[in-house]
Amino acid sequence: MKNINRRDFMKNASIASAVAVSASTAEAKVVKDLFVHHVYFWLKNPNSEADKAKLLEGLNKLAKVPTIRMVHIGTPASTNRSVIERGYAFSWLCFFDNLEEEEIYQKHPIHLKFVEDYSHLWEKVIVYDAVGPKR
Amino acid sequence: MKNINRRDFMKNASIASAVAVSASTAEAKVVKDLFVHHVYFWLKNPNSEADKAKLLEGLNKLAKVPTIRMVHIGTPASTNRSVIERGYAFSWLCFFDNLEEEEIYQKHPIHLKFVEDYSHLWEKVIVYDAVGPKR
Repeated sequence: MKNINRRDFMKNASIASAVAVSASTAEAKVVKDLFVHHVYFWLKNPNSEADKAKLLEGLNKLAKVPTIRMVHIGTPASTNRSVIERGYAFSWLCFFDNLEEEEIYQKHPIHLKFVEDYSHLWEKVIVYDAVGPKR
Repeated sequence: MKNINRRDFMKNASIASAVAVSASTAEAKVVKDLFVHHVYFWLKNPNSEADKAKLLEGLNKLAKVPTIRMVHIGTPASTNRSVIERGYAFSWLCFFDNLEEEEIYQKHPIHLKFVEDYSHLWEKVIVYDAVGPKR
């Protein structure tokens, strides 16, 4: 699977900021108006590499839902302070244009099939849906 | 404060994908290599509009830490299912190039000053640090 790489993504995000604002760079990187959908998955078998690989396979399929504007599939970083939650297996972070686009994602056949095929793998999910202030 | 707006951000993210990949659009939006730092803040006085405004002021100052590549400051969306956590006051989502850049942020004077000036407002924070797989 081909992907946007960090350098290209950020290079062009920088272009966006140069285009969009004349303020200082420090003020140019706050992104507004987007709907952030962040899901953390805890596995039933947290030590199973096979189950991790399986869920990752599912998440890569899920990434094809057309209303997703950008997605980051992550695992816990090596940072380890008392306030940091590290027990989950996968972080699934998506940006949508707005609530309506996220609702389309929730009902999309690819999403329903993902839940059908992979939900037996997880013990728990926590979802945080956050919206930025309007400009 | 001027900001990248969604349209410009996404327009240029689309350019990035066009530059970076020749695969289908569906495969082009998975962003890798980035360090995701997502913090959720619960306020001591969750119903205080003054405290919310104060913390938002602090977060906008915090956004000036130079190693932050992109930041989204959010509040809980209107979505409301059993798996959705909605009790927090603010979602603070940052992208960094890598762990080292996040560590610089943690020790940056702007960050230390933020904690000094605003931590009296929050009751609890939960942090999720996630890294994508290498390409």
